[in-house]
Amino acid sequence: MLESLRKSILSEADSEDLRVIVISANGPVFSSGHDLKELTSAQGREHHVQVFNTCSEVMTLIQDIPVPVMAMVNGVATAAGCQLVASCDIVIASEKSTFATPGVNVGLFCSTPAVAIGRTVPRKVALEMLFTGSPISAHDALLHGLVSKVVPENRLEEETLAIAERICWASQPVVALGKATFYSQMAQGRDAAYATASKVMVENLALRDGQEGIRAFIEKREPVWSHTTEKAHD
Amino acid sequence: MLESLRKSILSEADSEDLRVIVISANGPVFSSGHDLKELTSAQGREHHVQVFNTCSEVMTLIQDIPVPVMAMVNGVATAAGCQLVASCDIVIASEKSTFATPGVNVGLFCSTPAVAIGRTVPRKVALEMLFTGSPISAHDALLHGLVSKVVPENRLEEETLAIAERICWASQPVVALGKATFYSQMAQGRDAAYATASKVMVENLALRDGQEGIRAFIEKREPVWSHTTEKAHD
Amino acid sequence: MLESLRKSILSEADSEDLRVIVISANGPVFSSGHDLKELTSAQGREHHVQVFNTCSEVMTLIQDIPVPVMAMVNGVATAAGCQLVASCDIVIASEKSTFATPGVNVGLFCSTPAVAIGRTVPRKVALEMLFTGSPISAHDALLHGLVSKVVPENRLEEETLAIAERICWASQPVVALGKATFYSQMAQGRDAAYATASKVMVENLALRDGQEGIRAFIEKREPVWSHTTEKAHD
Repeated sequence: MLESLRKSILSEADSEDLRVIVISANGPVFSSGHDLKELTSAQGREHHVQVFNTCSEVMTLIQDIPVPVMAMVNGVATAAGCQLVASCDIVIASEKSTFATPGVNVGLFCSTPAVAIGRTVPRKVALEMLFTGSPISAHDALLHGLVSKVVPENRLEEETLAIAERICWASQPVVALGKATFYSQMAQGRDAAYATASKVMVENLALRDGQEGIRAFIEKREPVWSHTTEKAHD
Repeated sequence: MLESLRKSILSEADSEDLRVIVISANGPVFSSGHDLKELTSAQGREHHVQVFNTCSEVMTLIQDIPVPVMAMVNGVATAAGCQLVASCDIVIASEKSTFATPGVNVGLFCSTPAVAIGRTVPRKVALEMLFTGSPISAHDALLHGLVSKVVPENRLEEETLAIAERICWASQPVVALGKATFYSQMAQGRDAAYATASKVMVENLALRDGQEGIRAFIEKREPVWSHTTEKAHD
Repeated sequence: MLESLRKSILSEADSEDLRVIVISANGPVFSSGHDLKELTSAQGREHHVQVFNTCSEVMTLIQDIPVPVMAMVNGVATAAGCQLVASCDIVIASEKSTFATPGVNVGLFCSTPAVAIGRTVPRKVALEMLFTGSPISAHDALLHGLVSKVVPENRLEEETLAIAERICWASQPVVALGKATFYSQMAQGRDAAYATASKVMVENLALRDGQEGIRAFIEKREPVWSHTTEKAHD
């Protein structure tokens, strides 16, 4: 599953037409994380190393590719499944969804999920989830910043697609520049972050789509994006 | 506007009598950020560089001057206006206020606003705002930590001034030491932060106002602040 | 009090049977922080240095020892008492509890409490607490991540013990590895954090209790923990 996700992301990321990725699941479980049968000592240490390296690679890839990645969650997201939720850029969840890091119950503390979850929710919320393994509701996940929006199950797809369509409408290179800059500046101190972001604003303005958007705004018309990284002529 | 704000802050920051700054606006818009007409390619790259450098300077200045800076928001705060909100120490907003980073809609991703907003609200909230440009309500801004308090419009001034007056009542050098220490220790790791803050506590206790406050508390009377950085005599 | 807390934590941390620490108080005050009489200039600068060093040591010790530390709060937690709350891994509070950093009112800004509180609640919430000294309710403390759960006073002990018992049930070395890894990876950048945590997952799987938990799950039975750091045989 992780390999398939990794390959899909990498192959699609090369496509010029890709604007947004939505990760969803069939059935009542969004993702329950690793298959524990793969983690018995019979599989061997090298296999374990590979599983967790691939997992971390997928989770960081989600943030490092140029298009926004959304999760549409309708059910249970646990362990690495909860890590997947925490790693996505935007998460829309149905009211019945729940989120947990129950690894402690099977003697395998959710330390890799904690990397993503600890950077998404307040520390005390993360620690209670990790130490007890108890699930939190969609409402609490929203309260604590683990998901972006909670909607009734029958409106989940509609609400998710509305956001996805808004993203698809925007200029692809502008979104890509914005996403890459967000994650890189957030890893810096405030002053270095402003130096990075100010430089990007000037680059963004030099893009053809940067100038088209501003001209369209001033002329009170819809912009016509080139979706290219071409520089503006004038 | 940015230049004027910068000059006002810098000139006032020299005043011994300054205790707090409250930024507010007339009309239904708190601030809608940059004037897009200044950002066309006709203005030239050097002008763009200067605009964003001045902007970052104002935003960091707000946090680096010795007095608390409050925003009193009664309306729309978008793009660099939302960045201004996120950069203030304390923000009181009326219920009708809304907050957005709609740059993506005009082909100019709100990358500099994201520096302040990404350090203020959970990452998923910031990314949904940035990728969709959709506004969030005052209620959601409070929920996610973008504002400190939300009040009915007819109580906005009263509530803001009550907090401002509390700050004015306190010893100026004690507040200045506290504000500077807060931002400097927050940029450090936990153990370095404790080393910084522990040292400051001892310095604070050596201030005349540090000792006056404690004596007044023990003697159950109101303190009489010197508002100076003089050391205590005894 | 700080010395006594430090000695208790250090002596108990050596005990093999220790699984969780719950800090609580008798009476309507959880903790009101430092005794201001210890902080007059008559006590001398060296004494002040020692007080704040011991305080920082206790607060960091809470996070650095191998067992989870919980606070059960039923009343007022102010200044270093609020810092203690912010430093614990999990905090259960009764509805009537309040939290404040009122040092500014006695001329001693809560700069050391701000180290823990600034890492626990949104920056604007922390700054309003620090600049005004005004208390926040248990409800707002939950909203902003300062506490993990708020319950009616008559259910405080029951709810706290339920979580403590869940922690006691788990494998001690698995919990210890998880806690240590959480705090160490949170101090790193994302990619370094994943390298740390992925390595720990593989170590965790090599533990006897790591394999026992997974086997028990697959065999649909309760795990029997060794609570030792022994490696799995097979």
